[in-house]
Amino acid sequence: MCRWLAYSGTPLLLDTILYKPAHSLIDQSLHSKLGVETTNGDGFGVGWYAANGTPAVLRDVGPAWNNRNLREIADHVQSPLFFAHIRASTGTAVQQTNCHPFRHGRWLWMHNGSIADFHLMRRELFLLVDPQLFNGIEGTTDSEMMFYLALTFGLEQDPPGAVARMAGTVERIGHEKGVEFPLQMTVAVTDGVRVWAFRYSSKGESRSLFYSSRVDTLRTLHPDVEFLQEVSDETRLIVSEPLGDLPGAWNEVPESSYGVVQPGADEMFTFSPQAA
Amino acid sequence: MCRWLAYSGTPLLLDTILYKPAHSLIDQSLHSKLGVETTNGDGFGVGWYAANGTPAVLRDVGPAWNNRNLREIADHVQSPLFFAHIRASTGTAVQQTNCHPFRHGRWLWMHNGSIADFHLMRRELFLLVDPQLFNGIEGTTDSEMMFYLALTFGLEQDPPGAVARMAGTVERIGHEKGVEFPLQMTVAVTDGVRVWAFRYSSKGESRSLFYSSRVDTLRTLHPDVEFLQEVSDETRLIVSEPLGDLPGAWNEVPESSYGVVQPGADEMFTFSPQAA
Amino acid sequence: MCRWLAYSGTPLLLDTILYKPAHSLIDQSLHSKLGVETTNGDGFGVGWYAANGTPAVLRDVGPAWNNRNLREIADHVQSPLFFAHIRASTGTAVQQTNCHPFRHGRWLWMHNGSIADFHLMRRELFLLVDPQLFNGIEGTTDSEMMFYLALTFGLEQDPPGAVARMAGTVERIGHEKGVEFPLQMTVAVTDGVRVWAFRYSSKGESRSLFYSSRVDTLRTLHPDVEFLQEVSDETRLIVSEPLGDLPGAWNEVPESSYGVVQPGADEMFTFSPQAA
Amino acid sequence: MCRWLAYSGTPLLLDTILYKPAHSLIDQSLHSKLGVETTNGDGFGVGWYAANGTPAVLRDVGPAWNNRNLREIADHVQSPLFFAHIRASTGTAVQQTNCHPFRHGRWLWMHNGSIADFHLMRRELFLLVDPQLFNGIEGTTDSEMMFYLALTFGLEQDPPGAVARMAGTVERIGHEKGVEFPLQMTVAVTDGVRVWAFRYSSKGESRSLFYSSRVDTLRTLHPDVEFLQEVSDETRLIVSEPLGDLPGAWNEVPESSYGVVQPGADEMFTFSPQAA
Repeated sequence: MCRWLAYSGTPLLLDTILYKPAHSLIDQSLHSKLGVETTNGDGFGVGWYAANGTPAVLRDVGPAWNNRNLREIADHVQSPLFFAHIRASTGTAVQQTNCHPFRHGRWLWMHNGSIADFHLMRRELFLLVDPQLFNGIEGTTDSEMMFYLALTFGLEQDPPGAVARMAGTVERIGHEKGVEFPLQMTVAVTDGVRVWAFRYSSKGESRSLFYSSRVDTLRTLHPDVEFLQEVSDETRLIVSEPLGDLPGAWNEVPESSYGVVQPGADEMFTFSPQAA
Repeated sequence: MCRWLAYSGTPLLLDTILYKPAHSLIDQSLHSKLGVETTNGDGFGVGWYAANGTPAVLRDVGPAWNNRNLREIADHVQSPLFFAHIRASTGTAVQQTNCHPFRHGRWLWMHNGSIADFHLMRRELFLLVDPQLFNGIEGTTDSEMMFYLALTFGLEQDPPGAVARMAGTVERIGHEKGVEFPLQMTVAVTDGVRVWAFRYSSKGESRSLFYSSRVDTLRTLHPDVEFLQEVSDETRLIVSEPLGDLPGAWNEVPESSYGVVQPGADEMFTFSPQAA
Repeated sequence: MCRWLAYSGTPLLLDTILYKPAHSLIDQSLHSKLGVETTNGDGFGVGWYAANGTPAVLRDVGPAWNNRNLREIADHVQSPLFFAHIRASTGTAVQQTNCHPFRHGRWLWMHNGSIADFHLMRRELFLLVDPQLFNGIEGTTDSEMMFYLALTFGLEQDPPGAVARMAGTVERIGHEKGVEFPLQMTVAVTDGVRVWAFRYSSKGESRSLFYSSRVDTLRTLHPDVEFLQEVSDETRLIVSEPLGDLPGAWNEVPESSYGVVQPGADEMFTFSPQAA
Repeated sequence: MCRWLAYSGTPLLLDTILYKPAHSLIDQSLHSKLGVETTNGDGFGVGWYAANGTPAVLRDVGPAWNNRNLREIADHVQSPLFFAHIRASTGTAVQQTNCHPFRHGRWLWMHNGSIADFHLMRRELFLLVDPQLFNGIEGTTDSEMMFYLALTFGLEQDPPGAVARMAGTVERIGHEKGVEFPLQMTVAVTDGVRVWAFRYSSKGESRSLFYSSRVDTLRTLHPDVEFLQEVSDETRLIVSEPLGDLPGAWNEVPESSYGVVQPGADEMFTFSPQAA
């Protein structure tokens, strides 16, 4: 339903990633190639870690492609870790509190996909959210609910485990309500240091998700691409759709997997929902 | 926290009531005299019954005083029954789904006041909402929650009883949470035929509420006021603050009372919360 | 750059034309088939003649497809004559004052197309606008400038002549500035009684424009289509792209032509720019 | 009609100046004490010089007091030089392109006041703007026109001279149109290094303008105020209304004067309009 992008690495102007590439996220807001919808014009958000290490979030309800404030931020703000998201609503209100990324303390969360027949399970899921966290829910999306369930299930201590328990819970309650394939998700979550990215769907037909190749490998392949000289080996992008058209740059995240972008070697693991 | 106005009577251009009077609701959005805040600039809404008898609702997040679409509607739409509301948020998100009036089927609801320490009781109150109605809640205000509790408690069959049960429930749960004075409200609700207006607060110090005098009485007092010649005897206004400065035009709704504006003689009753 | 629709005939809920048809204008805001852009999400407007005969205009800066206030108006307002427009900006600010239709007194104007290299001639064109009208220009679009030039050249007395003089002037100044094909336009203009619709471009490759067939003819072709029984013979639509898929319903407006929808027989004429 | 603030000195989070002080600019948006209007809710803007030395501008149409994106920027962006402005429109459209500060290249401009009977002179003033600059005018305010006139008259080479010629021109044309007191202004303008602040009105009754005392003096007066220990001697604020309530902190800019905040000693001069 949406498209997103997560960047981690050498501090860059957001513009470098959000606007500059050939098939940039901003371009995808008008012309998505791999999304369920070609247009993602129902709000957007960008979250970045500022100089003091805390995440800032800019969100607005119009399309990203014509938003002047986003353009300003992209042209003037540098960050080593940022998330960006463009939304295509399927009826839920278009309002800031329904725009991604969502934030809790140091954590950012964004999502593409949906809980099928969410209206059937929304109340049950609400009841499972930690009462201490409950009032943090400001919007009405399934995505924010997934975040608060993951927080309830220990996201801050064990992100992959908490996301697995969230997914398992959504599937259990979905099945109780007669929903065959309750969950469809690509999710990115970060604490400002590491980024976890999940690709999963109950049906095994998940939305597209790609990660960029190691920068040192790409540098060898493309010694003349200036951008690659400017960023560290640690630099990594995870995206709903490939940006640009550099051969060898993009790799699909496998079905039912999650990756961790972190200081040192990044890792990829199998993902399976767990009972909670 | 807000100001509102309910009109019932001879079909009028909304402008006649919303903009024209000396101390109009639009003027109150900048310069409220009796409100807790002088400025009510955190969104607004107007709901009117159209020619086919169904309610239309226009809401937006900016101030009413500079909204051009509201001006257009006011200049071109006539209605025999309309609600208008200007909002002063105390922190809750400024978004359309938090603007009044709220609608359910043929019903409109608007509110000035608050549930004290709403964050302490929001989850409990949520659980009391009829699961069939639950997904209709789109925003995060106490006002919308009060509406859905009243609907749960039979608003469509017995408005005064349902509002009394809602108020009793809010007070009961508030007291359980240690909140001394849980409820502060002036509420207007309508089905498009009758308007019920409530003034109540747990502390007995309710926000201001006024109703206009009988038009036939006013006509005798002010034979030269043209407007009074143009509207029927049945015409009635209920307002947070008096409009204009016509002597004898406004009467305070007593504490712990509610009025019913209806075809035939209007009525006033005592209001007391009930256990539910 | 945009898509528009003009309706004249039996008073209808705006919804009947704006949302209901298979390939409605609202659908075109997301998925235009014949437009230069597939997405028209940079604001929208609707203008309708109200019961008192004056035009109301509702405009907003987000996409039409997710706008709740437009949905409300469409569901509750009836009119015998209305314009609707969805915008795709090519860089000009997305703001209400750049949304169509534009209004002057009883007149509404909307446009699809552009003045090529408008920035080269904007100042010169400004100087040609009647100083009495000058301050009415609130936005920065070529479309609004064309309206004010047409008003300057006598739109209220002789619409086809004034539009011809506007077009001639734009072409003259464009040629002076070295612009080969200065004008591309489909324009609709109305005084609330008649609608004039123009299709013209300097290059002879104008944007698409269609008008609906006579209702009596369509009724014979499609005796089972209920909608056709409900509207008068006089009912007419002019659209950038055909709505629905009724065979025989749509006819292309020829290049360099204009039509007049009016009480009695409608008419079609050749259009050619004139020196002014 | 508006309120503004200019900061130059030790790089600070915008929050430190925009939100933290007792009578902050954000507070003034709801409760101005010295302004013509108590509410300044018709849009706002903030411009800051980023790490690369170029100015970023964030503007929006709602009130500053409830804008979450402004809050985010203030909490996460540091700058050594920033402008902030809150607007109270007197009828001109509330849109981003009418919000201050205005930008041209490295320059920022903001204004409080008005050109009296601007509608009478708008066209004449437009004609005086350098045709090369003309298309940069995106909005409809007198404030932006003043900026473009000053640019036309050499703002980038000689700011005080250009502003004097702008003021002289507005007065000349105003007098030609029969306007007795054409100009009322407090203006701030910067190139990112120096800030010029002007206080002038044709009538000699200019809007309020204050500058902060030397930090070293204040430190002696208030050795216990922590904030003063953290900022350099060069730190300076210019404001429409004093922030906070520190005795000795604020000094009125005299009538018909301008000050220059710059590396080294700041300066104050007499201002008088000049023929251009």
